[in-house]
Amino acid sequence: MTTPLHQKSAHPEDTNQPHKAFRCEIAVRWSDQDANGHVNNARVVTLMEEARLLWLNQHAVAAGVGSFTDPKFVVALTVNYLKPISYGPALVLLLTTGRIGNRSFTVSYEGLQDSNTVFRASTVLVPIDTGSGRPRALTDEEIAYLGAYAPQDLETNDIGVKDD
Amino acid sequence: MTTPLHQKSAHPEDTNQPHKAFRCEIAVRWSDQDANGHVNNARVVTLMEEARLLWLNQHAVAAGVGSFTDPKFVVALTVNYLKPISYGPALVLLLTTGRIGNRSFTVSYEGLQDSNTVFRASTVLVPIDTGSGRPRALTDEEIAYLGAYAPQDLETNDIGVKDD
Amino acid sequence: MTTPLHQKSAHPEDTNQPHKAFRCEIAVRWSDQDANGHVNNARVVTLMEEARLLWLNQHAVAAGVGSFTDPKFVVALTVNYLKPISYGPALVLLLTTGRIGNRSFTVSYEGLQDSNTVFRASTVLVPIDTGSGRPRALTDEEIAYLGAYAPQDLETNDIGVKDD
Amino acid sequence: MTTPLHQKSAHPEDTNQPHKAFRCEIAVRWSDQDANGHVNNARVVTLMEEARLLWLNQHAVAAGVGSFTDPKFVVALTVNYLKPISYGPALVLLLTTGRIGNRSFTVSYEGLQDSNTVFRASTVLVPIDTGSGRPRALTDEEIAYLGAYAPQDLETNDIGVKDD
Repeated sequence: MTTPLHQKSAHPEDTNQPHKAFRCEIAVRWSDQDANGHVNNARVVTLMEEARLLWLNQHAVAAGVGSFTDPKFVVALTVNYLKPISYGPALVLLLTTGRIGNRSFTVSYEGLQDSNTVFRASTVLVPIDTGSGRPRALTDEEIAYLGAYAPQDLETNDIGVKDD
Repeated sequence: MTTPLHQKSAHPEDTNQPHKAFRCEIAVRWSDQDANGHVNNARVVTLMEEARLLWLNQHAVAAGVGSFTDPKFVVALTVNYLKPISYGPALVLLLTTGRIGNRSFTVSYEGLQDSNTVFRASTVLVPIDTGSGRPRALTDEEIAYLGAYAPQDLETNDIGVKDD
Repeated sequence: MTTPLHQKSAHPEDTNQPHKAFRCEIAVRWSDQDANGHVNNARVVTLMEEARLLWLNQHAVAAGVGSFTDPKFVVALTVNYLKPISYGPALVLLLTTGRIGNRSFTVSYEGLQDSNTVFRASTVLVPIDTGSGRPRALTDEEIAYLGAYAPQDLETNDIGVKDD
Repeated sequence: MTTPLHQKSAHPEDTNQPHKAFRCEIAVRWSDQDANGHVNNARVVTLMEEARLLWLNQHAVAAGVGSFTDPKFVVALTVNYLKPISYGPALVLLLTTGRIGNRSFTVSYEGLQDSNTVFRASTVLVPIDTGSGRPRALTDEEIAYLGAYAPQDLETNDIGVKDD
């Protein structure tokens, strides 16, 4: 259900750098629909959250990066809803890494149903130190893990250089 | 609970044009919190939805603009989460109109708790013709209603001229 | 919004004992509706939870019984759904105390919309000691508070005598 | 994910009548947890709803009983919560048929996590005629389908004889 999908980036200048997207299928529930009979726009954000947790709190942990289970604040969110999402057909999410800063990183999402892209989205996340309750810096291990899911390679992405 | 608040725009070039924000208080529920003990980021989108419906499906209807009760697709969403939102203190939302197109319009949101701005957000909405299930043009009546909640005055806002 | 309502019990043998119900109005959200266009049956349980928290975590605390804010496990739930609940009209909940045991108590709920009873329900609750994470006995103070909302008077109700 | 499980009934007088339970696994979401860190009691009702829909709106339809997709009102609900439900371990639901009336039927639920029974529940459902919006009688086909999931055999269960 959560096997990473190796795929070529769609980005034109990135022809030689295969990268991974984290791919998972999220079971849409009947109750995710609203009175208009489609998955509610707020519930899409919940489905994104669940996919992100499968990636960072389960898959990354299984890959040895346990610190991702620290709470993460969502500080920014954008969603473009391209097609109504129905209850019934499988909903596939592809997650990749966008910008990686010192104390934050961006996750990009693509939702697919019946082979159509139904939404594109991104969230900016800030990991929180459980002791202090304050934002903390990303670890080298976390940066390496996230970098493997970034469309551009590490050298050109200036990972860890830009501040937040 | 939903009386419009007349206020001066915070926009510097708009010193002479008072405009209205639609102000309402949304009751946060204990269940809006997630396992981290704050209102979940997806639930904030639900609270925005509820405020928007109080504005367009109740207040606008009471003001004589009944066509806003047609279903409206949310086609784009952005949220900036500025502070954690707690269960307990009143949550006030201020809604204003952003861009008004032929077949879409933007609603801007500011969330306040204990006099602090806790989030800023916007959604792009497309009204749907209930007969055809297709997007429909905004009516003159709807444009006038929305325009009264726009920070800039109607003349400079080119309302209804820009296409989507 | 949460003023207790003094009312005569509808119970025939209780003609001389006025008792209180905790009365509150819960704002139904558009998103509480499901694809069938009425408030979803699971969401009714959330509305009951919110009313219970207004009673025990806010009203009781204001009345000096602060220990009710300890977590409480819901161990049993029954709901009879009598009429569909709509988005729009005010939803009033009346809460009273049912059986009071040593380590548990029962809350009874009546939901009203447009003067019709739309559901009746009850939940059995077990207060949890925050230190040990284990069920704890009700305090005398809690028993007295709950007893004031019980249809029968304290003498005939054997409060605190029955074990769980 | 939704293959029916043939199992012997646990009912003592039913030693010779194997019957089926509908077995499915429901993916618990992180957002199903509440601020106490366990799956919320109201959300359990949503998980039951999803399992019921997998049974009656998907499995039964695949078995040729299409009329179960008509809306069904939940008129009564009971849940006994036996253990806290966690995010992480698989949640298995076993659904069987309880009483079958002329215009209603009862679904029984058992929830299992890590081989422990975490809840037992039942709901009384009333199928609705989509034309009139009124309760309708169960069809013979529906009664036969439901009867195959009833712990007692058809002869002793008086199916279709009891009125509602």
